[in-house]
Amino acid sequence: MDKKFAKESFTVMNELVLPNDTNPLNSLMGGRLLHWMDIAAAISAQKHCNRIVVTASVDTVSFHHPIKLGDVVTIEAQVSRAFNTSMEVRLTVWAQNIPSGTKIKSNEAFYTFVAIDENSNTLRVPELIPETENEKLYYTEAIQRRQLRLVLAGKMKASDAHELMHVFDSSNSAK
Amino acid sequence: MDKKFAKESFTVMNELVLPNDTNPLNSLMGGRLLHWMDIAAAISAQKHCNRIVVTASVDTVSFHHPIKLGDVVTIEAQVSRAFNTSMEVRLTVWAQNIPSGTKIKSNEAFYTFVAIDENSNTLRVPELIPETENEKLYYTEAIQRRQLRLVLAGKMKASDAHELMHVFDSSNSAK
Amino acid sequence: MDKKFAKESFTVMNELVLPNDTNPLNSLMGGRLLHWMDIAAAISAQKHCNRIVVTASVDTVSFHHPIKLGDVVTIEAQVSRAFNTSMEVRLTVWAQNIPSGTKIKSNEAFYTFVAIDENSNTLRVPELIPETENEKLYYTEAIQRRQLRLVLAGKMKASDAHELMHVFDSSNSAK
Amino acid sequence: MDKKFAKESFTVMNELVLPNDTNPLNSLMGGRLLHWMDIAAAISAQKHCNRIVVTASVDTVSFHHPIKLGDVVTIEAQVSRAFNTSMEVRLTVWAQNIPSGTKIKSNEAFYTFVAIDENSNTLRVPELIPETENEKLYYTEAIQRRQLRLVLAGKMKASDAHELMHVFDSSNSAK
Amino acid sequence: MDKKFAKESFTVMNELVLPNDTNPLNSLMGGRLLHWMDIAAAISAQKHCNRIVVTASVDTVSFHHPIKLGDVVTIEAQVSRAFNTSMEVRLTVWAQNIPSGTKIKSNEAFYTFVAIDENSNTLRVPELIPETENEKLYYTEAIQRRQLRLVLAGKMKASDAHELMHVFDSSNSAK
Amino acid sequence: MDKKFAKESFTVMNELVLPNDTNPLNSLMGGRLLHWMDIAAAISAQKHCNRIVVTASVDTVSFHHPIKLGDVVTIEAQVSRAFNTSMEVRLTVWAQNIPSGTKIKSNEAFYTFVAIDENSNTLRVPELIPETENEKLYYTEAIQRRQLRLVLAGKMKASDAHELMHVFDSSNSAK
Repeated sequence: MDKKFAKESFTVMNELVLPNDTNPLNSLMGGRLLHWMDIAAAISAQKHCNRIVVTASVDTVSFHHPIKLGDVVTIEAQVSRAFNTSMEVRLTVWAQNIPSGTKIKSNEAFYTFVAIDENSNTLRVPELIPETENEKLYYTEAIQRRQLRLVLAGKMKASDAHELMHVFDSSNSAK
Repeated sequence: MDKKFAKESFTVMNELVLPNDTNPLNSLMGGRLLHWMDIAAAISAQKHCNRIVVTASVDTVSFHHPIKLGDVVTIEAQVSRAFNTSMEVRLTVWAQNIPSGTKIKSNEAFYTFVAIDENSNTLRVPELIPETENEKLYYTEAIQRRQLRLVLAGKMKASDAHELMHVFDSSNSAK
Repeated sequence: MDKKFAKESFTVMNELVLPNDTNPLNSLMGGRLLHWMDIAAAISAQKHCNRIVVTASVDTVSFHHPIKLGDVVTIEAQVSRAFNTSMEVRLTVWAQNIPSGTKIKSNEAFYTFVAIDENSNTLRVPELIPETENEKLYYTEAIQRRQLRLVLAGKMKASDAHELMHVFDSSNSAK
Repeated sequence: MDKKFAKESFTVMNELVLPNDTNPLNSLMGGRLLHWMDIAAAISAQKHCNRIVVTASVDTVSFHHPIKLGDVVTIEAQVSRAFNTSMEVRLTVWAQNIPSGTKIKSNEAFYTFVAIDENSNTLRVPELIPETENEKLYYTEAIQRRQLRLVLAGKMKASDAHELMHVFDSSNSAK
Repeated sequence: MDKKFAKESFTVMNELVLPNDTNPLNSLMGGRLLHWMDIAAAISAQKHCNRIVVTASVDTVSFHHPIKLGDVVTIEAQVSRAFNTSMEVRLTVWAQNIPSGTKIKSNEAFYTFVAIDENSNTLRVPELIPETENEKLYYTEAIQRRQLRLVLAGKMKASDAHELMHVFDSSNSAK
Repeated sequence: MDKKFAKESFTVMNELVLPNDTNPLNSLMGGRLLHWMDIAAAISAQKHCNRIVVTASVDTVSFHHPIKLGDVVTIEAQVSRAFNTSMEVRLTVWAQNIPSGTKIKSNEAFYTFVAIDENSNTLRVPELIPETENEKLYYTEAIQRRQLRLVLAGKMKASDAHELMHVFDSSNSAK
């Protein structure tokens, strides 16, 4: 099975915040953004494995700034690491109010997808080759995030999560 | 400010999986479920604080089983702990295919909300009083989940997250 | 075929009134509410018969109070009586503006569903056993509502609708 | 205030049944149809009174035939009678599968609307002048339907609903 | 194959402009209107050929007046000419604000559809018989519009588009 | 007013074709695609002028290949020329079925937008500077397309559309 470069899965999605996406204060609802991110990440994961994919997990997502009606939301997605049958996708979300010239980085997140066939059996996916400094960083740290997911899901003892432990000894965040 | 019981924020939402909620394999898309969970959790947080609320963060959510077209999704939401201006909401998601008699627990998740006024200033929320064994457990463990969120957001050093550290010494998961 | 208790079909649905659900005066459109009620009632009827169900009729629904953008709509549905192949579902709708602390009973209604198989043939459904005082009242009065439906549909002579006639001799409404 | 002819409020709406309008058996959901009917009826009532209108009630609606994915739904709406501040709208629904050449009358229904100003105060509406035989019939029978609504809503004693009583002495249905 | 009269394909659609159809200035988005026009035109084309149809092209559409939230959009569609396997549909769009009594002709457009079978093979369609003066005019001019489409699509040399050329010699527009 | 480079308005949008976007043959409806294109083009025009924009016209769009459920639609938009208060945006649409490895250029189109202030008055927009060979070609040919729009709208005599005339003397299409 061919290996693929990280950049081959790069995907950009732009959405305009319309009335039905907002709460009564005219701000984008968090759930709607999570839904758009899911679609962008699914397209990116599809590009990596050329298979139908389904969402396996979403890592912690924080919302720091309100995104308003009429803003343009730009979602960039790229696979950060492939495991046997799963792919971790890194998402960056930008919110832009073009008439007023503001643009902020709104969110960062990691979604994980699994490749499946038409009977919902999982399938192997190509390895990912990181090239840039950042791609290599996300690739390396993916191990820690994966261990955190397994610990949180009760599928790995915290004491076995060696790479994750390492994080808790340093002042660097896992993200 | 009055304290409130955990159960006062209990909220149930039922949704029928319709064609537009599904991917080409007739399974519910993960992003759509995250969106429904956001609405159920927001209603629950509103009930606790009687304020407008906005999503502050979503903890890791895993998807283990496909939910199919025609299934009934039941989302139960209840505030698990209140901090100064934020509320952590615990969500349990059930997927039920009524004609075939199947019902599975599909997901567990924690969403955090902040109470705001009409100018988007944060507001204090009532303290939460847990009553049952489970409510007390979710209340106590909320400290660890909060530290994990802060560490992941780069707002707390891992070495300062004492309660979280404790998790990594035991075989109990944080969830 | 097993009988089932009324309470086994109890279903709660919460919806947040979002911009696209409203008219230009920011009030929930009646048709949108009728659509949500149909989904809640269908889930309730499914729970009673464990079959696919389709809407057979909707009884008169009145709208007395505007429900506003940002309100939480709570729909409670429970089967009130089962006939051979049909189920009458009683719905109560509450509208709540949580920040302002208001909660009103907005609507009461009866929807009727038929159980069908995959070829759209009707199927027998279990009998319903009412337990509480209210459940018994809704069960008994269901005969009158049924006769009214048949008369309105031109399938029964008004002069044959004996239980319905009885209503028009007393000062109690059929609802 | 000017009187208006019934035909001035005549409104036709055509909708194509798309996947999200259907249940898992590819049939149009009853609630979606009720929603479309509400919009068609609101436009018709607006044409009569040249005001913003809100739904006041929906009379019994029966669903006799499944409407399928890809069918064209034609809704005809026309005001059947105006009272002081309310208008009764008569709806006829046709379902057409054009490639197979089938067309059935699917539903008949009466929706009632109230005219309001921007502060939600009710407003007087013009009288309606029926012209054709059918328009005159719907106009006359509107009294009986109105009494039935008032009795069902507990706002009129059944014994005072004289025109409605009359129906129950004859073999003609109220519709 | 039977010929059909132009009027047999006449279709009217009414839509109410709701919040999610609008941009942040409360005006109907052009793309939403194009979508509604596509559905109205598809129904009209279906009526002419009694087949499943797919959009083949949309001619230039201009937007001259903002259509506002709460307006009623009326779309009239009728087949203007049939070719071997395609049908040109003429659309007229009216925007009406009923409470303020305004009604403007908002757009005119031509959509072209192709009839297909279940395997997406194109099928012959009946000839169209125009009857009124206007129907005959649209029928005749359809040749010029067709040549323009072919020239714009690079499928016909401009120098071979004789009827179209004729337009550029006169002061009459092609529309 | 500053001039801006064509590439500054470059915008990419990716959409996944979901069930509600499709007709009964599981193909993307033309109207839905036109709606997505409108949003992508509006974002691009906003980037050029930093103003709120509204759609002024859509040039002829042809649909040559069915786009299927589950396909990824990629829309690339870039301003091709700015006039006083309007901007022409060039769109290219790609349809990709990632699991089967197919990718086709589905459509090319030109949408025109006008910049407005909050009172819907038109505003001047920056000049556009084309840089690449293609950008220069689209820039030059924009005159012809503009004359065609004006002729079709009856606002210019065909005999005055000199640049457009030139097209009809050559064997090159206007696109």
